[in-house]
Amino acid sequence: MLKGNAIVAQSGGPTAVINSSVCGVAQQWLKNEQIGTLYGALFGIRGVLEGRLVDLGAQSQEVIAGLRYTPGAALGSSRYKLKTEEDYIKLLEAFKKYNIRYFFYIGGNDSMDTCDKVNRLAEKNNYEMRVIGIPKTVDNDLPVTDHCPGYGSAARYIATSVLEAGMDLKNLITGNRIVLFEAMGRNTGWLAAASVLARREPGDAPHLIYLPEVPFNKDRFLADVEAVYRKNDYAFVVVSEGLVDEKGDYIFAGKERDSFGHAQLGGLADTLRGMIEAETGVKVRTIIPATLQRSAMHCVSGNDNEEAYRLGVEAVNMALQGQSGIMLTLVREEGTPYRCSIGSTELAKVANVEKKVPREWITREGNDVTADFINYARPLIEGELSLPMKGGLPLFSSLEGVSFQELRVALR
Amino acid sequence: MLKGNAIVAQSGGPTAVINSSVCGVAQQWLKNEQIGTLYGALFGIRGVLEGRLVDLGAQSQEVIAGLRYTPGAALGSSRYKLKTEEDYIKLLEAFKKYNIRYFFYIGGNDSMDTCDKVNRLAEKNNYEMRVIGIPKTVDNDLPVTDHCPGYGSAARYIATSVLEAGMDLKNLITGNRIVLFEAMGRNTGWLAAASVLARREPGDAPHLIYLPEVPFNKDRFLADVEAVYRKNDYAFVVVSEGLVDEKGDYIFAGKERDSFGHAQLGGLADTLRGMIEAETGVKVRTIIPATLQRSAMHCVSGNDNEEAYRLGVEAVNMALQGQSGIMLTLVREEGTPYRCSIGSTELAKVANVEKKVPREWITREGNDVTADFINYARPLIEGELSLPMKGGLPLFSSLEGVSFQELRVALR
Repeated sequence: MLKGNAIVAQSGGPTAVINSSVCGVAQQWLKNEQIGTLYGALFGIRGVLEGRLVDLGAQSQEVIAGLRYTPGAALGSSRYKLKTEEDYIKLLEAFKKYNIRYFFYIGGNDSMDTCDKVNRLAEKNNYEMRVIGIPKTVDNDLPVTDHCPGYGSAARYIATSVLEAGMDLKNLITGNRIVLFEAMGRNTGWLAAASVLARREPGDAPHLIYLPEVPFNKDRFLADVEAVYRKNDYAFVVVSEGLVDEKGDYIFAGKERDSFGHAQLGGLADTLRGMIEAETGVKVRTIIPATLQRSAMHCVSGNDNEEAYRLGVEAVNMALQGQSGIMLTLVREEGTPYRCSIGSTELAKVANVEKKVPREWITREGNDVTADFINYARPLIEGELSLPMKGGLPLFSSLEGVSFQELRVALR
Repeated sequence: MLKGNAIVAQSGGPTAVINSSVCGVAQQWLKNEQIGTLYGALFGIRGVLEGRLVDLGAQSQEVIAGLRYTPGAALGSSRYKLKTEEDYIKLLEAFKKYNIRYFFYIGGNDSMDTCDKVNRLAEKNNYEMRVIGIPKTVDNDLPVTDHCPGYGSAARYIATSVLEAGMDLKNLITGNRIVLFEAMGRNTGWLAAASVLARREPGDAPHLIYLPEVPFNKDRFLADVEAVYRKNDYAFVVVSEGLVDEKGDYIFAGKERDSFGHAQLGGLADTLRGMIEAETGVKVRTIIPATLQRSAMHCVSGNDNEEAYRLGVEAVNMALQGQSGIMLTLVREEGTPYRCSIGSTELAKVANVEKKVPREWITREGNDVTADFINYARPLIEGELSLPMKGGLPLFSSLEGVSFQELRVALR
């Protein structure tokens, strides 16, 4: 057994269950404490580069256990992209200085690329280390794994919201009769598609769903919306923020790019609202839940929370067995009831690869999804979890003795 | 005891608990069935005008009981304003035709005006009828009553959302560092103010809260946001959709007016986002939950749900005791634990009157609320309610044998 210390870190946008994976890593590692110390790197890879590490073994068991019920990134997160030679030198120095032999990195596509780079760095320098990626992304766009932790809870939030806002709309005959709901999802429509789970009876909201997997056609879109509106006297439309036209250009995108070079989206719903109002003269209301989709712990999927936790536990087990250079995956078993086991794949196979919604799970018209998608997504939003509550609001956990506030100002 | 039939109707925007009041009316009335039939008027007063009535006694007990857990307007709702002489003639004819002697109307300010008009119409025509208003509005702007059913649940949804989106923002150091959360509230800031309940420790989100009760000053607003951002490296700002300038003009308002003549709001957050980005160069993310605020049954306040139900029950009791021309009120008792009894006030005293957040509950700077507001609002979001669930989503009730879909097309 390789002795030494470990780092667990979080990367990219948080999810409702990203801390559940940290909880799994921590509780499993701390059962094997003789191996070494488990550090949390604060604000992702930046915490490693800048030596901002916190001993998770020194945290109370209550704080660690509470992470399972805490949204946001309890260790802090960033989207820092390793680029310069200097970064790699600093990383290796940090690993040596703290005798880091285990590296658990929880993140999405870009983060798995970082994780892969860390693994190659160690190999190239003959520095023995176990590097394990733990999948996380509400976008559900990592390949190989059946689905991604974080997706089920965001999907449940979206389905719940569309179900409830649909109830609000359908029996009210004055006011905005067309609602546009903007779902997250940079290049894939997994989140927008999940809104279909709100539809229990034919005719229920959502009536139309648009994913980036199908090029957006303005005329067809307006004709679809108008047809539903004329038939029903109202329409509930879900759009993915990442809709693109035939050329692959975003329907709406600001000029800003994030530090990975991706366009920052937002404002799509308002663009579409303008189109619909100009065409139909009907008032449109937009619902833009934005980061509520990835932070709504109060709407967490019990299955998702459990899987995120188990992935953390298994990451430690596999690392201690000597595995490295892998991302863990969820492998769905055949049949019912729904069950997933845990597998793995090489980091290089997932880094920067995006899994899209299969075209055959989208209707031919490109404005809805099929029963295959529903069968895939339904179990991911299931499972009830009772949250600790105080004063009518969920009660969250936070690391003791760490001022994220001071640190984020220092890292600015 | 006045014998005859009864109508219960819903008016204006739905809330998470408006059907809980219908449930209270129905269950209490059906205990006294010998008095007459209880009709639900579909789509509010329009259902009375057009003879669209459904016998609630013919619905199954399960459907009626399920209304306590159902958002939206289970009877249908509208914002129809009684205007013409013809309307009044039709109303009186409908009352006589169906021998309606009891009228229960669930709504907000404008609806209490309608209720008052119905009462005067009956009195003027010596038509004996008991007319009772049951308060409802997420805006919490009805006078006399301590608070309005619907407010506590919307407040809980807002506080929960700001708590969770605040967790998402605070430990993530890449991306949008300023978040603008747009709360509902046409002319009052009760809903925006409720976001303060998310703040458990100093420094927690929300950092700034703007209500329409204090004239909006662009320079002061930008200076506030910039100061918080410079100090913390991030800022979470809550704004009420109804913000107005010194002259009383909305900061953002479309040209459209609703059927009561009120400006239709929306788009404020985007206007403010533009201001902040231009001034600071910092990227801003907007969260616009819109109707999720008033439909989020999955986040319902147990206290709110219970009070809405009790008001329905008491409306029947008071009407059977011979009272009329009143709106029921919630009367908060002194001390702790929190308790409310039910009182009443004349309809004429509440019709079209708006209760604003007291200036002394808003800080002198006009960008936050005080402990007095917190003490007022906290108990209103408390109380846990276990919802019936199916497939990871809440299970709702709907009237049997009524096609709202066909009816809304017919009423178009």
